[in-house]
Amino acid sequence: MAGLGVGLIGTGYMGKCHALAWNSVASVFGDVDRPRLVALAEVDADLAARKAGELGFETATGNWRDVIDNPAVDVVSVTTPNAFHADMAIAALQAGKHVWCEKPMAPRLADAERMRTAARQAGKVAAMGYNYIQNPMIRHIKALIASGAIGAVNHVRVEMDEDFMADPSALFYWKSEAASGYGALDDFAVHPLSLLFVLFGHVEAVIADMVKPYAQRPLASGGQRSVENHDVASVLLRLEGGISTVLMANRSAWGRKGRIALQIFGSAGSILFDQERMNEFEIYQTGDISGGQGFRKVLAAPEHAPYHRFIPAPGHGLGFNDLKIIECRELIAAIDGQPSHLIGFEDGLRIERAIHAMARSFEEQRWVRVEN
Amino acid sequence: MAGLGVGLIGTGYMGKCHALAWNSVASVFGDVDRPRLVALAEVDADLAARKAGELGFETATGNWRDVIDNPAVDVVSVTTPNAFHADMAIAALQAGKHVWCEKPMAPRLADAERMRTAARQAGKVAAMGYNYIQNPMIRHIKALIASGAIGAVNHVRVEMDEDFMADPSALFYWKSEAASGYGALDDFAVHPLSLLFVLFGHVEAVIADMVKPYAQRPLASGGQRSVENHDVASVLLRLEGGISTVLMANRSAWGRKGRIALQIFGSAGSILFDQERMNEFEIYQTGDISGGQGFRKVLAAPEHAPYHRFIPAPGHGLGFNDLKIIECRELIAAIDGQPSHLIGFEDGLRIERAIHAMARSFEEQRWVRVEN
Amino acid sequence: MAGLGVGLIGTGYMGKCHALAWNSVASVFGDVDRPRLVALAEVDADLAARKAGELGFETATGNWRDVIDNPAVDVVSVTTPNAFHADMAIAALQAGKHVWCEKPMAPRLADAERMRTAARQAGKVAAMGYNYIQNPMIRHIKALIASGAIGAVNHVRVEMDEDFMADPSALFYWKSEAASGYGALDDFAVHPLSLLFVLFGHVEAVIADMVKPYAQRPLASGGQRSVENHDVASVLLRLEGGISTVLMANRSAWGRKGRIALQIFGSAGSILFDQERMNEFEIYQTGDISGGQGFRKVLAAPEHAPYHRFIPAPGHGLGFNDLKIIECRELIAAIDGQPSHLIGFEDGLRIERAIHAMARSFEEQRWVRVEN
Amino acid sequence: MAGLGVGLIGTGYMGKCHALAWNSVASVFGDVDRPRLVALAEVDADLAARKAGELGFETATGNWRDVIDNPAVDVVSVTTPNAFHADMAIAALQAGKHVWCEKPMAPRLADAERMRTAARQAGKVAAMGYNYIQNPMIRHIKALIASGAIGAVNHVRVEMDEDFMADPSALFYWKSEAASGYGALDDFAVHPLSLLFVLFGHVEAVIADMVKPYAQRPLASGGQRSVENHDVASVLLRLEGGISTVLMANRSAWGRKGRIALQIFGSAGSILFDQERMNEFEIYQTGDISGGQGFRKVLAAPEHAPYHRFIPAPGHGLGFNDLKIIECRELIAAIDGQPSHLIGFEDGLRIERAIHAMARSFEEQRWVRVEN
Repeated sequence: MAGLGVGLIGTGYMGKCHALAWNSVASVFGDVDRPRLVALAEVDADLAARKAGELGFETATGNWRDVIDNPAVDVVSVTTPNAFHADMAIAALQAGKHVWCEKPMAPRLADAERMRTAARQAGKVAAMGYNYIQNPMIRHIKALIASGAIGAVNHVRVEMDEDFMADPSALFYWKSEAASGYGALDDFAVHPLSLLFVLFGHVEAVIADMVKPYAQRPLASGGQRSVENHDVASVLLRLEGGISTVLMANRSAWGRKGRIALQIFGSAGSILFDQERMNEFEIYQTGDISGGQGFRKVLAAPEHAPYHRFIPAPGHGLGFNDLKIIECRELIAAIDGQPSHLIGFEDGLRIERAIHAMARSFEEQRWVRVEN
Repeated sequence: MAGLGVGLIGTGYMGKCHALAWNSVASVFGDVDRPRLVALAEVDADLAARKAGELGFETATGNWRDVIDNPAVDVVSVTTPNAFHADMAIAALQAGKHVWCEKPMAPRLADAERMRTAARQAGKVAAMGYNYIQNPMIRHIKALIASGAIGAVNHVRVEMDEDFMADPSALFYWKSEAASGYGALDDFAVHPLSLLFVLFGHVEAVIADMVKPYAQRPLASGGQRSVENHDVASVLLRLEGGISTVLMANRSAWGRKGRIALQIFGSAGSILFDQERMNEFEIYQTGDISGGQGFRKVLAAPEHAPYHRFIPAPGHGLGFNDLKIIECRELIAAIDGQPSHLIGFEDGLRIERAIHAMARSFEEQRWVRVEN
Repeated sequence: MAGLGVGLIGTGYMGKCHALAWNSVASVFGDVDRPRLVALAEVDADLAARKAGELGFETATGNWRDVIDNPAVDVVSVTTPNAFHADMAIAALQAGKHVWCEKPMAPRLADAERMRTAARQAGKVAAMGYNYIQNPMIRHIKALIASGAIGAVNHVRVEMDEDFMADPSALFYWKSEAASGYGALDDFAVHPLSLLFVLFGHVEAVIADMVKPYAQRPLASGGQRSVENHDVASVLLRLEGGISTVLMANRSAWGRKGRIALQIFGSAGSILFDQERMNEFEIYQTGDISGGQGFRKVLAAPEHAPYHRFIPAPGHGLGFNDLKIIECRELIAAIDGQPSHLIGFEDGLRIERAIHAMARSFEEQRWVRVEN
Repeated sequence: MAGLGVGLIGTGYMGKCHALAWNSVASVFGDVDRPRLVALAEVDADLAARKAGELGFETATGNWRDVIDNPAVDVVSVTTPNAFHADMAIAALQAGKHVWCEKPMAPRLADAERMRTAARQAGKVAAMGYNYIQNPMIRHIKALIASGAIGAVNHVRVEMDEDFMADPSALFYWKSEAASGYGALDDFAVHPLSLLFVLFGHVEAVIADMVKPYAQRPLASGGQRSVENHDVASVLLRLEGGISTVLMANRSAWGRKGRIALQIFGSAGSILFDQERMNEFEIYQTGDISGGQGFRKVLAAPEHAPYHRFIPAPGHGLGFNDLKIIECRELIAAIDGQPSHLIGFEDGLRIERAIHAMARSFEEQRWVRVEN
């Protein structure tokens, strides 16, 4: 049987990631037909042609609508800048294609709502590219919690920190403009929220504090320009069922490169995880045998599906790009009507509503309830 | 020259700690006269006599006022339960003694204010036993920040977690009564606040969330009793100068035994510290030489005064009890009129006001400014 | 321009790894033509056909000589069990193909020597699949050492430990037969030796100790069978230039899953690495700036080529399978006549001679010099 | 009842350590009479007097024989340079005193043998100051092994590394003279050997390699002087019962400050320990419950006797100096005729014989059996 026909819009880093995933998913998993890489679009036709060669696509175009109109395309990867997601994803859905869209949905909440509506009407798979939830460690942690391994969860802390905005002498660029969003909140906090969603469910109420480490940044032309959004956000949250949570995001955190650190406290144990060491997690269980209680550091292993599809031996390690291959396999499962582990446009919209509620809570200096 | 005459009230764990410090301070530091351990008080005269033998005191009494009345006593260690601190410390100050009082000052803010007033009036040294600030690592971190090693600090996170309340099957005891305080806030948060005070200064505004991991706890008699305070507290703070800070305290955090974790982010680097590994800290500096940027793990060493008074070689490690010996040396310095690194009753009161403000912010679900 | 024509013999885990690498190398690197996956051989024609579908090969065969005879094949991946390497690699070389052979070369030294001779005679690229040397961390460590970042290296320790033989109740299987080799020495020690070779050069002299943790292992039929080789090997080595080295290998090391730990000591610093955390290394440099000396933990980043070909942001992490993609790119470079970072059959043979010398040193309980 | 009368010879760092221990042992443990600090000797009478004041001794002398002749002295701490140990310890034993002697026994094996003989003849307690064996973590590890927690031990690795000789530009001093000993072997390896002795028993056979990282070192006068001993030693050992062990010692290991790292592999688990983080160990047990196997990091806690004598709460940490207090309590137990955990002169001699055997194995480039 022929594999899915794939279209790709956008060939930046995430576009390359999608292409690698489509290229590798059949070899890694061995249980799906090899997808057919049908059509690729870039903003420039020449670049599109070159990228099609590199990434293994049959055809290339400078017009993204060609991808959507291509009858051989069953599913469209949307990996363009956020402002373009809504139009492309909606057009693809309306053309009867499945959609795999990079996060977040859209800068404006109204656009995200339109995307959700289009997905409902089309009845097609509409999945967000929240790749961190695909880490076998996260999926295993979810299973552990569900099995009661640490009892009832009562408190959670999650931190996401990088340092690409940490240098005060770096030139002002678009990430510091208000037009690009709230800052750390939408740039970062969507990722920890995706983890909170798959592990614990919806966010019910929030109050955020935000700061600008640097009020101004230098311009290439000389002089300074005021920074318009906040690189640091700290949020108190209440999740479904009342779990108290602290979410911290800092894109000016010198020394942090890809930290997404979870601390999960339950009535019978605790779990720790940090994406910077994505192939391990730690668990403390009150029932551990003799020798003293302690956090057990568990290395990624074949027992943590689908690690075994990549490597048959424990402790050898997956990489960041491998998460996209897993996400791709989940997408194929969803398209095949099988259970899948994905954040669709419904929950994607809930994540974005939580972000906007956080921003409002800061502006109004009060707790805000999230509409779910 | 004769050393200080020492009185000790209370011989629980902290009393023993004070006694060990008074016994060792001259041997460790080699630059002060050996204190004379004059008088010890316990609630029971027999116990007092036995403890005087163990701890090396010359006289013992079942009446704490005997210690204060003893003319050979220059300084009084107050290590009794918190509810007794105010009366004892005030009486000692009024008798012209210096006072070394275990933290916190008093359960009721009014009592803490009375203590502060008595200290002002007496003109004697009135020091709190905030031992974690004495860690050479913390003192070195303070010096590093002051020297600009990580630039201007803009964001801080501090966590204090233990698990002695984590077991839901443990019997209800006084720590869960409202009469004992707010829960994690006063039981724990005073410690991270002491670190924030010495490193960064006053707290200006707070908003806290608190939860009870277990609504009820079992009674020995059978049945359950409602828990009256909160084992988990999460607080957004603004410090002097606007530094945004997150303070998290959890005394039901399975697996955490003595965690006091600091993350300090500045414009030119970051510093990490965890009291569970009290003999090391990590620093990331943008100016580090070739080989790639990274967090440098620095082990406690003679260059981190006064580590060298204990051990002449690096990396061999101080212990928790050693911090009290350092605190004792600082107290002697203060009594000698020299510069010292201590939290006195003035700043001690500020810490307690911050705690009460946090509790009010939770009750009223709003940001609260701290009176300083 | 058309990419290389690829043949693959063997589709076990390493065969899959080669296939993934051939599939991804062009997309990841973007600077080579996409290889054409021409022909795949498995021992069974049906399995071969199924695997060709999964792994993306055009043709399949049950006879490995068909792959070698295929004129569209330029390079042959040999990923069969070790005993078959010599015949296949030699045949491929004699047919004018480049060869990419999994390690080790061959169980018998004479076969490895024949392979080396065939490679010399063919004048084709003949590369070993020593993937750990491809880790960007290892390549960066090599560059650091060459640049004098830690001065002159004087002492090295390397450990390789896993626990797949650690269970004494596991049934006897072929890995415990003398026919399969010396045990940990050839099963494991070739990997740390590959690292020593690329970082420091040849081995000059060795003395080894070996032990059997379990003298016997159970048989499925009941009863026990004597273990014929050694799961633990410890070796003192002298490398080129006299560097004293300790090599330790243990395949019965409970809890170790993929540990390959390096400690490198120099006159101006030290470097630490552990493959279980393959995306970081630690460096201590005497010249580091203020704040105290310490080991700096450096996370994999774009500055550590070719990490940047996979991910544009630091700290996000490569996986074990990615190392094979890098190795594949190096192989293509070698075929193109460009400088490459590979262990060819010449050095591969030196590694195997070192292994055999270790075994002899144990048997004869004396230091043995290695022929180079 | 009166406590022991204590004499101290030597007031360098180890003398201070002994004094602190004698001062604190009664307060910490609460189950022994306070020792009476009777007499202290230093090479200079003025220094002796000053030190007696600092350290709390009643009398001071410039002649060490005065301490031994003092009838109020029951036990003598010998903490002078190694070359003086034999004469002082033997004189003290012959005078009917118990002896607590810092390690190692003596530079020359014949002196160590004389010490052992004197101890046998005197019938007094003659204990060595091997403080690392007193770490509650080590004592707990011993109990764990004895209880079968990791099954039968089959392989051990131990490393001891510091960097005080690592700087090639540091001036030549006595530690590099042949007269001071073999180098790392006697300076360091006695410590890991003390751990091996208490955990596993005698050493049966050894083969060592040694190197000089720097052939010469600068002189203050200008010019260079040849280094006469070896800063790096690597040893293969066989312990009692055939356990294969690797012992590594390096006093030129940049970045290592007090590392004594143990790896213990058994048939049902593994244990890891590092003195640089002396308040924790790691254990991997095959029987751990769900959630994945892993190394459990156990923090020092009251359940690890005698930690509870110092601190009633887990995870708060002992320091290096505390180990001497524990050793002191063990010595008192031995003097009281109770079971104790100490290395006496008998086993101390075995350790020194093992060291000399290592040196001979290097000189003769062959395995050497140790006389036990």
